[in-house]
Amino acid sequence: MLYSSLLGKTKKDVSKEEQSKSAQLLLKSGYVQREMAGAYAYLPLGLIVLQKLIRIIREEMNAIGGQELLLSSLQKPELFETTNRWSDKEVDIWFKTKTKSGSELGLAFSHEEPLVSILTKEIQSYKDLPLYPYQFQNKFRNELRAKSGLLRTREFIMKDMYSFSRNVKEFEDYYEKAKDAYMKIFGRVGIGNETYITFASGGIFSKYSHEFQSLSEVGEDTIYIDKEKRIAINKEVYTDEVIKELGVDKNNLVEKKAIEVGNIFPLKTKFSNAGNLYYTDETGQKQEIIMGCYGIGLGRLMGTIVELNYDYKGIIWPENVAPYEVHLIGLTLDNTRIMEKATVIYKLLTGAGVEVLFDDRLDVSAGEKFSDADLIGIPHRVVISQKTGDQVEIKKRSEEKAELVSKEGLLNRLANP
Amino acid sequence: MLYSSLLGKTKKDVSKEEQSKSAQLLLKSGYVQREMAGAYAYLPLGLIVLQKLIRIIREEMNAIGGQELLLSSLQKPELFETTNRWSDKEVDIWFKTKTKSGSELGLAFSHEEPLVSILTKEIQSYKDLPLYPYQFQNKFRNELRAKSGLLRTREFIMKDMYSFSRNVKEFEDYYEKAKDAYMKIFGRVGIGNETYITFASGGIFSKYSHEFQSLSEVGEDTIYIDKEKRIAINKEVYTDEVIKELGVDKNNLVEKKAIEVGNIFPLKTKFSNAGNLYYTDETGQKQEIIMGCYGIGLGRLMGTIVELNYDYKGIIWPENVAPYEVHLIGLTLDNTRIMEKATVIYKLLTGAGVEVLFDDRLDVSAGEKFSDADLIGIPHRVVISQKTGDQVEIKKRSEEKAELVSKEGLLNRLANP
Repeated sequence: MLYSSLLGKTKKDVSKEEQSKSAQLLLKSGYVQREMAGAYAYLPLGLIVLQKLIRIIREEMNAIGGQELLLSSLQKPELFETTNRWSDKEVDIWFKTKTKSGSELGLAFSHEEPLVSILTKEIQSYKDLPLYPYQFQNKFRNELRAKSGLLRTREFIMKDMYSFSRNVKEFEDYYEKAKDAYMKIFGRVGIGNETYITFASGGIFSKYSHEFQSLSEVGEDTIYIDKEKRIAINKEVYTDEVIKELGVDKNNLVEKKAIEVGNIFPLKTKFSNAGNLYYTDETGQKQEIIMGCYGIGLGRLMGTIVELNYDYKGIIWPENVAPYEVHLIGLTLDNTRIMEKATVIYKLLTGAGVEVLFDDRLDVSAGEKFSDADLIGIPHRVVISQKTGDQVEIKKRSEEKAELVSKEGLLNRLANP
Repeated sequence: MLYSSLLGKTKKDVSKEEQSKSAQLLLKSGYVQREMAGAYAYLPLGLIVLQKLIRIIREEMNAIGGQELLLSSLQKPELFETTNRWSDKEVDIWFKTKTKSGSELGLAFSHEEPLVSILTKEIQSYKDLPLYPYQFQNKFRNELRAKSGLLRTREFIMKDMYSFSRNVKEFEDYYEKAKDAYMKIFGRVGIGNETYITFASGGIFSKYSHEFQSLSEVGEDTIYIDKEKRIAINKEVYTDEVIKELGVDKNNLVEKKAIEVGNIFPLKTKFSNAGNLYYTDETGQKQEIIMGCYGIGLGRLMGTIVELNYDYKGIIWPENVAPYEVHLIGLTLDNTRIMEKATVIYKLLTGAGVEVLFDDRLDVSAGEKFSDADLIGIPHRVVISQKTGDQVEIKKRSEEKAELVSKEGLLNRLANP
């Protein structure tokens, strides 16, 4: 991509209303724009990151038997009334609307009820189970305060998976698999080291749910981490009894602020029973279906990755989710032949399958190009200038040291296998 | 994919409420489920088709300089008030809702105003133009009657592109490029022969807009086609003056019913001026920006493809958009060794990159497997049975004749290059 043509360039100033560092950085570097409090537009750079997150999550969901589908946002009251989740008294984050004929509709904040309703037409016998449907779907949540940038919004894409199992054992086995898949996801997107499986309240469903909490001072949650065992306990269930039950030593626990980047939740039979979703077992008996749900908010995940990966100059994207692999800079000075040389390198790299953002602007100073590159945070910076001669300069965003390498050396280092 | 595990199998009966053949077929064969009038859930098979449509459209949009982004559905009144499109009297398809604090919000039925608002932060000089942003985004339209299945819904994914040009010439050149790109898209998804560029009313903006109309008895539009010139005129502008102006002979025009699968529209400066979006030219003068918009509804496109491609047995997917390339059937009879042989073929094909739906069910008759395959409509059916010996039987969904081929012959015919 030529930076001169890119929709969404770096900006000097961004709204003072943005309180989170990640939102400030994402706005300043041209990844997103704020449409209103709690609603963001993804500009091309931001959408590429979002799509990379989706690809990674999709792969891990498919690897544990997930089947992707897509439900609608508009929802009828009837389904949510069966579980007592339609009333604004019970669920205070609904956005509601009306059809022309005056019927009330809601914009789904979650999809247990409609999915159960759909599955009543798909599940009859034990042969139709287990099922692990998931989607990347827009959720709407009428948050009173939405002021942490992409960390808490009124509209966001969520990966929500739901498990439908024939018995508790089958559910529990899957729940463990999902835990592993989640840690793989957070590892692949570059926040594995800072992210802890955290015991949290299971609400009315079970003793615990499990949150995936990434350590960050801007997080809304307080957790107690055991660095060695790589588990944590949410403050909401932090009691001596729980500490003992989990077999951790209170002396090893450290209090931290953290952002919840994912959560998984046993649902037992609340939604399946309410939706009249059962199956017939091998002996012809009607049986209950055990459910679980597994969520990751995509915008919050992107925001968290940035919260954990920046310095005073800008974002430092982990390689797997960076919008491009290489930020190529041609320094023209008064010599346009340099730009021709840079164009050759651009074609060489893109031809080899390397994703390159090429700052081809002619009227911008070297200093501005460097500071834009640092702000945007692409992992590798490649510079062509009069000084580099027949070679090119390569530097990692996360390191200070630059190196001169030949074209062949550059290709060897960057080209995809 | 193993058919035994697939979420979304064929169904004997579907809702009598579905009046369109495409909706009946898509429901019956397990591609979609109806959530309410005008809102559908895409089951895994349907979502694969949707994703293939998205991939094709994305490629063609990128090929003409499109840059993908993603705006929010929630929208503030202020932006739409600038163009007089907030009032329900002016735009009667709004779904509106409210924030906790009582402020009105709307669910975007189209995105001209918010996109113009975003671009005021991105466009200053002539160097920032032209721009061709597009998105695949959920649109909400409060239709009074939504009864044609996927052809007219209250919530649907739309590819909406908008062009921002520095002058009329630049706009017109792009408009022609977009026309070609649209015809390429409809060709690639298998409805090129039945789809006509159709002169329609340009409303307040210009003499004409252009619709892409696919001939079908269930279409809502009446058009007059010139088969040889491959153009058509919408009834709404079908006058002697227009016929003359377009240089067609009235005697060559045939009246047809058609479904509008896409439309492109000159917007002149209505939205850019209203949104205070201008640019500075080479001489420092403030200039107006000429806009166009270019839409394709994804659900309607899928519905139209089915309307144009089915027989009494079921859907006949065009190859580029079929959910799988091969529908593999193992006929067990009382011989489970056949299923082992079929599994070998399944692994052989998927290993070679062929997308296969494998009907591995053990308790289903040959007749039922064949009729399910015909209903689902995957282009190639491959059968392994006692009769096929060391060979396999291959048949196109669109043809009657089956052939016996060796494993190698099968691979040669199907494997991706």
